[in-house]
Amino acid sequence: MNGRADRIQLTEVCLRDGSHAVAHQFTEEQVRNVVRGLDEAGMHYIEVSHGDGLGGSTIQYGKSLVDEMTLIEAAVDECKNSKIAVLLIPGIGTMNELKQAKDLGARLVRIATHATEADVSAQHISKARELGMEALGFLMMAHSVPVEKLVEQAKLMESYGAEAVYVTDSAGALLPTEVRERIKALRQALDIEVGFHGHNNLSVAVANTITAIEEGATRIDGSVRCLGAGAGNTQTEVLVAVLERMGIDVGIDLYKMMDVAENIVGPIIPGSQEIKKGSLVLGYAGVYSSFLLHAERAGKRFGIDPRDILVELGKMKVVGGQEDMILDVAAELAKNSKVRA
Amino acid sequence: MNGRADRIQLTEVCLRDGSHAVAHQFTEEQVRNVVRGLDEAGMHYIEVSHGDGLGGSTIQYGKSLVDEMTLIEAAVDECKNSKIAVLLIPGIGTMNELKQAKDLGARLVRIATHATEADVSAQHISKARELGMEALGFLMMAHSVPVEKLVEQAKLMESYGAEAVYVTDSAGALLPTEVRERIKALRQALDIEVGFHGHNNLSVAVANTITAIEEGATRIDGSVRCLGAGAGNTQTEVLVAVLERMGIDVGIDLYKMMDVAENIVGPIIPGSQEIKKGSLVLGYAGVYSSFLLHAERAGKRFGIDPRDILVELGKMKVVGGQEDMILDVAAELAKNSKVRA
Repeated sequence: MNGRADRIQLTEVCLRDGSHAVAHQFTEEQVRNVVRGLDEAGMHYIEVSHGDGLGGSTIQYGKSLVDEMTLIEAAVDECKNSKIAVLLIPGIGTMNELKQAKDLGARLVRIATHATEADVSAQHISKARELGMEALGFLMMAHSVPVEKLVEQAKLMESYGAEAVYVTDSAGALLPTEVRERIKALRQALDIEVGFHGHNNLSVAVANTITAIEEGATRIDGSVRCLGAGAGNTQTEVLVAVLERMGIDVGIDLYKMMDVAENIVGPIIPGSQEIKKGSLVLGYAGVYSSFLLHAERAGKRFGIDPRDILVELGKMKVVGGQEDMILDVAAELAKNSKVRA
Repeated sequence: MNGRADRIQLTEVCLRDGSHAVAHQFTEEQVRNVVRGLDEAGMHYIEVSHGDGLGGSTIQYGKSLVDEMTLIEAAVDECKNSKIAVLLIPGIGTMNELKQAKDLGARLVRIATHATEADVSAQHISKARELGMEALGFLMMAHSVPVEKLVEQAKLMESYGAEAVYVTDSAGALLPTEVRERIKALRQALDIEVGFHGHNNLSVAVANTITAIEEGATRIDGSVRCLGAGAGNTQTEVLVAVLERMGIDVGIDLYKMMDVAENIVGPIIPGSQEIKKGSLVLGYAGVYSSFLLHAERAGKRFGIDPRDILVELGKMKVVGGQEDMILDVAAELAKNSKVRA
């Protein structure tokens, strides 16, 4: 196994990715209740951070109701067996915040970059290792780059000291066959563990995750009741049920997970995590969720369907920070009248 | 192709399976609006019947707000291109009702039986053919029988004159590999078309449906916004998006389907179609949704977890009509104290 784990390790992300779904308004009591329930169910890792990672609580990304360090400390306090993880996107979070999280008891960090920008993770990964944390790489928008590029970027993260690299399907745009080729390629190219983080925009998050596991991914993310950005993530309690049905024991208590979903996380969900128009088109187009509002505005201004703008942006593989291009694309589409009424 | 269709035909079931989700309270206006939207989007077939098929409006199965014949007539009236389908479960619906539906303009009927009881469909299938309707067989709870048994039963339906047979995953209990082997076996054994009807209790309805299509199924069911029993069905508009992504053109307008989902069906949904505790355990155990309430009552009475009762019933492959066994199972479990607290 090249030193790779022979057992699947689940990371529950409802207290990090799910932060988007509650507009970063988690209370300390909610976090304590969720962590206590997950810990009792046997969850391996529980990620606690602002939705955009450490330091994300800003006007730009949305202010958290409660300081994430308070939430991390509370989460660590509730854990008997589970380990607390954090997420850090270089450029948003800093080394300072990472150290703070570590001092509060966080044991693992995922350093997340766009799928083409692994190089910005070098310092953070080595710093995390120096601090004695587990440090994993998280390649976001993994659908938007060719497999060879993803392999190249993953190898960079491995060279920086990452102990695993995730295929992160941020837009929920990957289909099972696409997950299969990515996980397979990474498994072949790397000596470290491979992970998968799915979103459910195309309703295949659980199927993608099973596929990833079949191909040897051992670091797996899920979110109870799909609480996460877009249509949410791979629904953890459903995944555990499916894995049991497949005869794969991950050491997590299914009934307790169901109870956490029903009694603790369910009441926190502000709306519903169903797949609606917005989340579906994001997955179909394969773009950042932050583009949705911009595309709607641009569509209105130029009299075209915002979905056409999003699809075009997806084809052009526009990344975060390039929001200016949305108006250009809308103008171009309007000019060409390449519109679906 | 042995005379089999070379093109996928979708049947939208939100106005039949979805009848369960709205406690059979569809209004004529709702049905007209949904049908008009689906017809404009290019849907091939639209099924309109009580949730339990023609004649299902009873105290036992739930009374419909509006007589289904009124709804069928309204649906036919709204169709420019789509065809109206009905469902009939022998023992619930009668030949009389089938004739009435046909006279009102229904063009296709699915004769549905438990996966082991295809023989009760013989008369209804031949009667439907006599009436000049398309007649398809619908093998419910297809997860609960061995593949060979399913093939045997499907061949019976073929011998009665069915023009297609569906693998019907009523409990949402099948996983993609299980769908694959069933569709493959039916495709090999039959000269007629093979269909797939999924439920989303294990969050793999879309993946199961893609798998069925990969294996050659050409009759495919979906439900807009998952409106259906349990966790609902394969979400039609998501399936259409996924098929487009896969390069499979089914001749349905994706944006119009999204609009039907958002503007017409969305507002009808009484709760949400998320996967919650009840629907998850039904899929995990592989039992009828009608068992849930019985199991909860029996669990209370015997002081055991109702989920253990459902799992046991699933193992025993108890079918509808055998509800008495639920108390027996509960008593036995309580006696053996084989309980998960």
